[in-house]
Amino acid sequence: MSSWLPIAADSGFGLANLPYGVDDNSVLVAVGDAVLDLTACARATGSPYADVVSRPSLDLLLAAGPSVWAAVRADIATWLTDPSYRPVVEPLLRARDDATLRLPFTVGDYVDFYASEQHATNLGRILRPGEPALRPNWHHLPVGYHGRSGTVVVAGTPVVRPHGQLGPGRFGPTTRLDVEVEVGFVVGAPSAQGTAVSVSAFASHVFGVCLVNDWSARDIQGWEYQPLGPFLGKSFATSVSPWIVPLAALSAARVPVGSAGRELATYLREDEPWGLDLTLELRRNGEVLSRPPYREMFWSPAQMLAHVTVNGASVRTGDLYASGTVSGADRSQWGSLIELYDNSEFLADGDDVVISATAPAADGTRLSFGDVRGVVKPAVTALQD
Amino acid sequence: MSSWLPIAADSGFGLANLPYGVDDNSVLVAVGDAVLDLTACARATGSPYADVVSRPSLDLLLAAGPSVWAAVRADIATWLTDPSYRPVVEPLLRARDDATLRLPFTVGDYVDFYASEQHATNLGRILRPGEPALRPNWHHLPVGYHGRSGTVVVAGTPVVRPHGQLGPGRFGPTTRLDVEVEVGFVVGAPSAQGTAVSVSAFASHVFGVCLVNDWSARDIQGWEYQPLGPFLGKSFATSVSPWIVPLAALSAARVPVGSAGRELATYLREDEPWGLDLTLELRRNGEVLSRPPYREMFWSPAQMLAHVTVNGASVRTGDLYASGTVSGADRSQWGSLIELYDNSEFLADGDDVVISATAPAADGTRLSFGDVRGVVKPAVTALQD
Repeated sequence: MSSWLPIAADSGFGLANLPYGVDDNSVLVAVGDAVLDLTACARATGSPYADVVSRPSLDLLLAAGPSVWAAVRADIATWLTDPSYRPVVEPLLRARDDATLRLPFTVGDYVDFYASEQHATNLGRILRPGEPALRPNWHHLPVGYHGRSGTVVVAGTPVVRPHGQLGPGRFGPTTRLDVEVEVGFVVGAPSAQGTAVSVSAFASHVFGVCLVNDWSARDIQGWEYQPLGPFLGKSFATSVSPWIVPLAALSAARVPVGSAGRELATYLREDEPWGLDLTLELRRNGEVLSRPPYREMFWSPAQMLAHVTVNGASVRTGDLYASGTVSGADRSQWGSLIELYDNSEFLADGDDVVISATAPAADGTRLSFGDVRGVVKPAVTALQD
Repeated sequence: MSSWLPIAADSGFGLANLPYGVDDNSVLVAVGDAVLDLTACARATGSPYADVVSRPSLDLLLAAGPSVWAAVRADIATWLTDPSYRPVVEPLLRARDDATLRLPFTVGDYVDFYASEQHATNLGRILRPGEPALRPNWHHLPVGYHGRSGTVVVAGTPVVRPHGQLGPGRFGPTTRLDVEVEVGFVVGAPSAQGTAVSVSAFASHVFGVCLVNDWSARDIQGWEYQPLGPFLGKSFATSVSPWIVPLAALSAARVPVGSAGRELATYLREDEPWGLDLTLELRRNGEVLSRPPYREMFWSPAQMLAHVTVNGASVRTGDLYASGTVSGADRSQWGSLIELYDNSEFLADGDDVVISATAPAADGTRLSFGDVRGVVKPAVTALQD
C-alpha cells in the first residue's frame, strides 16, 4: 500500500508512522515532509470522527478510546493511499517545516520512572558511593515519583537555567544543569479510581509514545531530595516531542524487557512483551553524545501502568508517564551528562540539546519520533514577581 | 454589621467566614446553617461577577484574581446584611445539611510538604532509628514532593484500602493504613514559567485554605520510597474539605511560624507573618484522637509558595499544596496514627475518620472549616480491569 503522496523511503514519517501533533488551529498528522490538517480533512471527508479532532488539541481523540483511535488511523491511511481522495486531501497538506507545533494535549498527572538498570546503577555509584548502587526494591517494582505537570513544555521551548538552594547557605543559578533522555507514554482512555489496569490492558488505555527531556539541576536535587525525592531540581521544565506516535505504529518494535522471566509480583508479569526497540540519540550543539537503547530497559510501560494503578489510583486522559533516563551497557549509550562525564561536566548557557529516536516500522522502514530540542537560556536575575 | 439571617454566635460560619463550595448546579457560600446559591444570587442581583460563578466550579473565580475575590466577598456580605436584598437573597438559601458538595475546583498540580518539625522528628525517629531524625536540609528549605492530583477527592468519598507491595515478595492490602492531618492551600492567580513568586506576593496568588487528609499506606510507602520518595503509598486517595475558606477570612489568625527570625535564604524571609492559628481535630469513630496546632508549623504557606516557584516553576489556577502532617509538641497534638501509636496501630475497615478545624475570626468568633470525613472500605479483591 503506497501513498499518492511522494514519501522518501528514509523519511521516518511514512504511512507506517502517522504521528499526531497540533498547531494553533488544528490537529495535524505528520506524513513525509508534510503535515496533514486532520481537523480540516476529517470535516472535508465527512468523517464520523470529525468532532474528536475539531479543536487544536488531542484531548478529545485521546479520550475517545482504542476503537476510535484505530478507525481514525485507518481513515488517514485510506485518505493518503486511495487516489480518489487526493483532490480533497492534497490541498490540506503543508510543509512540515512550516508548522508551529504546540503542546499536543493537556497534561494530567506526570509520573517519572527510573526503569533503566544501567542508569540507576550509574547514578547510585556517583551519588551514593560506598553504598549498594541499587536499593533493595529496585528489581521488585518500577521505582517512580510524581513530577510537575504544569511545567511540561513542547520541544523548542527555551529552558531558563533555574535558581535554587545548591547546598546549606548556598543560593544561585544551578551550575550542574543536566538532561535526561527518556521515553514518555500518553494515557488516552481513563480508568476508575479503585480499579487497577492490568499489564494486558495497556493498549486499551495508552494512546501513544513521545520523547522526553527531563531537565535536571543536579545540585538543587542533591540537596533537596532526602527523604521525599526530587522536587525543584526537576520541576522547572520537562520537554516533550511535538509528535505522539500511536502505539499501533510500534507493533514491529516490541521486545521483551529485562524483567521478563524474573520472579515478579503477579500484577507485573507480562503475557506479551511491551518493551520497545527505540534507538535514541542525544546531541549537544550538533555533536552526538550518545545513542541510548530503549530495548534494554528493565521495566516496560505496561508494567509501569499496572504499577501506577495497582493501589486503585485512577489514570486520566492526558496523564503522561516517562521511563526515566535510558542508558545502555556501553558508555556511548548513556542518557545523561552526569553519567557521560562522571559528574564533572554539565550544560552551558546557549547549549542546544536535541533528543531524537527511530524504531523499526511494520513496513520494514524505520519510523522517526519528533525531535525534542531545547536551548539553555541564562539564569534570570530579577526573578521575583 | 449583622445579618438579617439569624446566625448562631458559635456557628463557625458567620459573616467573618463565608467559605465557598460547589454542588452539582451552583457555586455555594456557607452561612450559618444555610448555603447561599451564589450562582443564582449573582445573577438575580445583576452582579458584574455573575459570569465567574456561573458554573458549578470555583475555577473561574480562582482565576479571576484578588480584586475580584475581594469584590465578590464584599458583595456577599452586603447581600446578607442589607435588608433591602433580603427578598431577593432569602429564597436562594437552603439548609447546609441538604447540600451535596462536590470537589470545588479542578486540581492542577498537587504538592505535599513536610513542614512540621515535630512530625518530621517523630517520623524520622520511627522510620530511621539510629540516624538523625531530621535530614541536614530540613531547616533550610520546606521539604516537599509532588503528589497525585487525579486522586484528590472531596470529603465524604469512601476510601478503599489499597493493595500494593508491602515488602520483598509480599503483596496484598495494606495493613498499615494511616491518616495525616494537613492544611491545604488553593492557588487562584497563576504565575508565569520562569518567574518566582515572592513571599510578599502570597495573597496575590493564593485564594484560600482547606483541610486535607493525606491517606497513607505505611507499609507500601516504606518499601517503595527510596530513593525517589512517596508514590503509591499516598497516591490512592487524598481527601479535601468541601469548603474553601478565603485567605481574607483569616486575617485574625495570622501568626509567625517557627522559622521566623532564623537565618534563611532571602527568598524565604517573610516580611509579614503567614503562619495561621488553626486548631485542628482528628476524630476516629467519634473519639477525639488529637488536636494538632497549625500555629506551631516551621514553614508558612507563603514560604512554601516562594519555594515551589524559586526555580521558575509556574503555578496554575487550581494548584493545591498541603502543609504535611500537623503535629504539636505534646502527644495529644500529633496528626497521624503512626505517631500517636508508635507504629503499632492503624485504621480498620469501617473506621470513620473526621478532620475538622477552627480559627479565630476577625469579629471575635471562631470560624470553622468544613469537615474532611472519610470511611475506610475493605480492599477490593477483583481489582483488575
